[in-house]
Amino acid sequence: MANTFGHLFRITTWGESHGGGVGVVVDGCPPRLKLTEADLQPDLDRRRPGQSRIVTPRKESDTVQILSGTFEGRTLGTPISMWVKNEDHRSEAYTEMATKFRPSHADYTYQAKFGIRAWPGGGRTSARETIGRVAAGAIAKKILREKFGVEVLAYVKQVQRLAAEVNPETVRFKDIEANIVRCPDAVMAEKMIRLIERTRKAGDSVGGIVEGVARGVPPGWGEPVFDRLEADLAKAMLSLPATKAFEVGSGFGGILLTGREHNDAFRMRGGKVRTVTNRSGGIQGGISNGETVYFRVAFKPTATIFHEQDTVDVHFKNTTLKPRGRHDPCVLPRAVPMVEAMTALVLVDHALRHRAQCG
Amino acid sequence: MANTFGHLFRITTWGESHGGGVGVVVDGCPPRLKLTEADLQPDLDRRRPGQSRIVTPRKESDTVQILSGTFEGRTLGTPISMWVKNEDHRSEAYTEMATKFRPSHADYTYQAKFGIRAWPGGGRTSARETIGRVAAGAIAKKILREKFGVEVLAYVKQVQRLAAEVNPETVRFKDIEANIVRCPDAVMAEKMIRLIERTRKAGDSVGGIVEGVARGVPPGWGEPVFDRLEADLAKAMLSLPATKAFEVGSGFGGILLTGREHNDAFRMRGGKVRTVTNRSGGIQGGISNGETVYFRVAFKPTATIFHEQDTVDVHFKNTTLKPRGRHDPCVLPRAVPMVEAMTALVLVDHALRHRAQCG
Amino acid sequence: MANTFGHLFRITTWGESHGGGVGVVVDGCPPRLKLTEADLQPDLDRRRPGQSRIVTPRKESDTVQILSGTFEGRTLGTPISMWVKNEDHRSEAYTEMATKFRPSHADYTYQAKFGIRAWPGGGRTSARETIGRVAAGAIAKKILREKFGVEVLAYVKQVQRLAAEVNPETVRFKDIEANIVRCPDAVMAEKMIRLIERTRKAGDSVGGIVEGVARGVPPGWGEPVFDRLEADLAKAMLSLPATKAFEVGSGFGGILLTGREHNDAFRMRGGKVRTVTNRSGGIQGGISNGETVYFRVAFKPTATIFHEQDTVDVHFKNTTLKPRGRHDPCVLPRAVPMVEAMTALVLVDHALRHRAQCG
Amino acid sequence: MANTFGHLFRITTWGESHGGGVGVVVDGCPPRLKLTEADLQPDLDRRRPGQSRIVTPRKESDTVQILSGTFEGRTLGTPISMWVKNEDHRSEAYTEMATKFRPSHADYTYQAKFGIRAWPGGGRTSARETIGRVAAGAIAKKILREKFGVEVLAYVKQVQRLAAEVNPETVRFKDIEANIVRCPDAVMAEKMIRLIERTRKAGDSVGGIVEGVARGVPPGWGEPVFDRLEADLAKAMLSLPATKAFEVGSGFGGILLTGREHNDAFRMRGGKVRTVTNRSGGIQGGISNGETVYFRVAFKPTATIFHEQDTVDVHFKNTTLKPRGRHDPCVLPRAVPMVEAMTALVLVDHALRHRAQCG
Repeated sequence: MANTFGHLFRITTWGESHGGGVGVVVDGCPPRLKLTEADLQPDLDRRRPGQSRIVTPRKESDTVQILSGTFEGRTLGTPISMWVKNEDHRSEAYTEMATKFRPSHADYTYQAKFGIRAWPGGGRTSARETIGRVAAGAIAKKILREKFGVEVLAYVKQVQRLAAEVNPETVRFKDIEANIVRCPDAVMAEKMIRLIERTRKAGDSVGGIVEGVARGVPPGWGEPVFDRLEADLAKAMLSLPATKAFEVGSGFGGILLTGREHNDAFRMRGGKVRTVTNRSGGIQGGISNGETVYFRVAFKPTATIFHEQDTVDVHFKNTTLKPRGRHDPCVLPRAVPMVEAMTALVLVDHALRHRAQCG
Repeated sequence: MANTFGHLFRITTWGESHGGGVGVVVDGCPPRLKLTEADLQPDLDRRRPGQSRIVTPRKESDTVQILSGTFEGRTLGTPISMWVKNEDHRSEAYTEMATKFRPSHADYTYQAKFGIRAWPGGGRTSARETIGRVAAGAIAKKILREKFGVEVLAYVKQVQRLAAEVNPETVRFKDIEANIVRCPDAVMAEKMIRLIERTRKAGDSVGGIVEGVARGVPPGWGEPVFDRLEADLAKAMLSLPATKAFEVGSGFGGILLTGREHNDAFRMRGGKVRTVTNRSGGIQGGISNGETVYFRVAFKPTATIFHEQDTVDVHFKNTTLKPRGRHDPCVLPRAVPMVEAMTALVLVDHALRHRAQCG
Repeated sequence: MANTFGHLFRITTWGESHGGGVGVVVDGCPPRLKLTEADLQPDLDRRRPGQSRIVTPRKESDTVQILSGTFEGRTLGTPISMWVKNEDHRSEAYTEMATKFRPSHADYTYQAKFGIRAWPGGGRTSARETIGRVAAGAIAKKILREKFGVEVLAYVKQVQRLAAEVNPETVRFKDIEANIVRCPDAVMAEKMIRLIERTRKAGDSVGGIVEGVARGVPPGWGEPVFDRLEADLAKAMLSLPATKAFEVGSGFGGILLTGREHNDAFRMRGGKVRTVTNRSGGIQGGISNGETVYFRVAFKPTATIFHEQDTVDVHFKNTTLKPRGRHDPCVLPRAVPMVEAMTALVLVDHALRHRAQCG
Repeated sequence: MANTFGHLFRITTWGESHGGGVGVVVDGCPPRLKLTEADLQPDLDRRRPGQSRIVTPRKESDTVQILSGTFEGRTLGTPISMWVKNEDHRSEAYTEMATKFRPSHADYTYQAKFGIRAWPGGGRTSARETIGRVAAGAIAKKILREKFGVEVLAYVKQVQRLAAEVNPETVRFKDIEANIVRCPDAVMAEKMIRLIERTRKAGDSVGGIVEGVARGVPPGWGEPVFDRLEADLAKAMLSLPATKAFEVGSGFGGILLTGREHNDAFRMRGGKVRTVTNRSGGIQGGISNGETVYFRVAFKPTATIFHEQDTVDVHFKNTTLKPRGRHDPCVLPRAVPMVEAMTALVLVDHALRHRAQCG
């Protein structure tokens, strides 16, 4: 089940960087949802290389095609197969990759696990794999919005030491998309962009934090004891390439408070049970409580850098490697739609699971 | 599948705080493993309330019984059912809980989700649920140790601001168990214990960090793209009560470095491909690389505190609640065996999955 | 997942013939359903040995206990753990079984697969394992009846060559339970009972057919292409001990007709789309069509017979075996509640799955 | 999980009769297996319409393309995506299908379940869906043959009343493929072909039985209590379109024998535990016993016939329907590779599961 995610709204992704293409099959989508490629392409464009001067310049249009599961513009309830053809076959740029393991990449571990690897472009470990997730996530977001009134957003919260001020309760999509780094704090966004540009010129890379938000989640989603909402979000995020950490609500910072300071008091507000603070991050005991769900994901600095590094070759000899070509000096702007997609996939799956048992 | 964890080595836990008991069924255990209750009880004793002056004084012996799946002291390959009877039925201590939602507990969300809840002792949301995990984890640890040469450890890394210095490569079980807070840094352990005692007397609570370690994991475990080893560890940890965050390897701290600083160079050592540093936390591309796996889990300050707090009752009226009785001023010492258990469950499941596809 | 059945309404059974007992954990049960042991015991009594002169005289009361998942007589939505203690530990009756593989039993295959087996009473291969299924099935039947208006029945259709005439549309529970063989055709029932008694006295055994029926299933249950309703029923039935065959609707007999003769014409009746005939067995394209679902399951003659048979011992030497003790001369009367249980488990799972995607 | 089959060797099929195409994603395939389209196309050709005068003349080349999961002609261990484009878009031939439910087809049930259906060509209910199964099954057969020494075969055993004599122990692939009906009994094959031709000319259809065989299965495959080998085979077969029944070994016929007559005595032969007879069909207690696995599957007469039939339209009015165009007068010759594929998929999944737990 390595390449399948979800229980009731299930996606299976496939594809390597080079080869026929990359794609995804979505099973369990509710029927009669309006759906065409036009619903998917915008998120794919936000994920696409070459979209701005601070991301990898690899040129691919990433045009998605729906092969099954819809009829006359509506979903059938049958599997939705979506496909993006591979275009940019410059495998000659990667020849050294054929024989050397790139440090902090997955070349060595794939070789160790499978005894074989598709080295061009990193094969299955390429970020191209996330195309399927983003396409499926676009469907999930649409379901959440139209059927459940839930809005999913993500944005760049921090690049290296540059931390933005953002209010998860009020942040708007258009403010996120207002700049190429996808940080709704316009002042900090400018600094981030300059840092990334400097980093790119230095042939180096930086990491940071993406914050994910889901507003309008009703109380009751989440399946303890194992499939807690935050547990499934954590898994979803850590399944994205280059992620190293996840925290929900108060997260690691919450441990500096005492219980008395940390607890979220309940109060009635607008006829609903609400919490005065939201250190719980909208989830208590693994189940949504009606407050805004928010969490943060750390992405390490991209492993591809243009400096000579010590490594080992496929014949188990010490050597050095200095990559050429193109890279993402900072993965965060392109990671934003990936975080949104995975969030939406978790939420719609839990929405359906909740309806099944308690509906 | 809310109460089942794992794909090939699968556990299903059951039970509420009050009622017949709590237990677990383990399916998929390899046959012919030596196994009796004596293999399980030590970890249950490490999880047990009343084990020291810094944990909740609730008195329960938590004696485990194996009901099936073994014959003449060896596993059969059939489901292993394990059971701990409930003893401490002081439900009168909890009567206010019948009508009021405890802040930052799961009372409200369970009621919202299911329209019913077992309020005595918190029902299914009680930490007693983890008994089943710890019992199953003891089997998983035994398999890892005996069949794969893998050692799993966990310890308290930080209580509030008190952070210990511990080397994941060399820390020993006996140093962890040398004090009641389960922190192998003896000097810091003393400070932690004093802080927890002060906190208990103040009727308050503190949180902190448990670090988990797995040594001897061979290269190749982990099932990208979704069931990456770190993704399954993240889910496992966030499925534990009171957890708010997870980070593997360099974690959130890794974003302060550039790629050039962060990458783990490869070098041959002892005839093996090794990394010079281990910011990857023993996992690259979702697959173990042969280095020590290590990660940190944040536990929030326990929600039960002995101060009056604003809350709402089951009739949706504002009210206040001041819990009486017993509580864990700091969940960390008892969380250590839980983190070990979940780590072992993830690893043995991945060991079997790897053997299935690539064995 | 060998011992877990179902996707949303999931059961996990455990237990061997000898040992602590046998049981089941039900996960995914809707909350707030009235449930006590009194809802379960009647079906367990119908499954119990010693209930009549034509079944095995093994004496066990099979008293079920609910250990978790209910509160004040209602389900919580959390796992329901149910347990029946083992009582009848006459393992001395089985000593030859310790060293010889009983023909057409699972002794040899368990040994071959696991390298170990619990020989007393057949261990996990004992029909006692079905206790958990029947207990879980009683809950499933209650949900189907109360929440969906679906009635599940089963009865003995044929014993060896003695075939009963029964109309699946009109057969009543009380007619099935009117005799000890559970055949609603009273005349044929008498003949069946006499045949079974003769067979028992001869130390031999007979097989036959149980027919299962579900009335009131609404159109729309079933999840093609793989989890077709009839496919899941087939798996459920073939997972019962001693089963060899399954047919739905016209079954094997349907191949004697041409398409023109076999097709079920549609007609409007009572404002609903109905079929004039029901050779489809209530299922078309893997989805229920609103007609009565009916199917037949073949149970082979019980393998335990009191005659000397050629076999092999655990040292791989040819030998002979003549079982002593007790046996079921015909498994069918006790198989009836098992077929009902598995039918109900499949249906309630599909009801929830349908609600999740299309509700 | 409706469109996913298998636990460790998992396939997900997608696609409708009309639209982008049909395909399958295989996850969990062992790495380093030699694999190109040439390994898949022969089985697709055996499944293809238009292959002989006794099957539907629909003209499609069904050329399969591997889009991912291989590199330099070997499997990577990553998902293998396979695709067949749709060519034959004659949807005008089906216009009456847009408004009328074909009797004994799935038109009505899909509409009832999903509230929408892709009527051209039957959409997802078209036999084209099985293309993905057959392609994946070709991989499974290759693994079984090369890694486990297991041979999977299927053949037409009976058409209406015409029953062939075939020995499952000795039947050869070339004898099966020696005639267009795929019955290795040459004399009976001729009669079957004449019957099917007569039936086609009469605008009618006939059904029959396909027998499946697996030789060389080692003792130990199968996962009781639910995932018994025969249970998973039964589900696999009943998940194929137009199937109504399944029997393994002695099947329904076995109930005419007594236990004494039916039991398979064990004897040592060639240093192995063998059975003298094989009424068990190679499976005991849900686990393979080393004998040949064999079973039979009933396919009903094709529902599409060229005679006027009573039916109902989408406005719930009584009407009649007389299909035009093309049809399979007998599905059996094309069902043979489908049965092989599903058999192989079940077996390879169980081989991997057995290795995981007991390897």
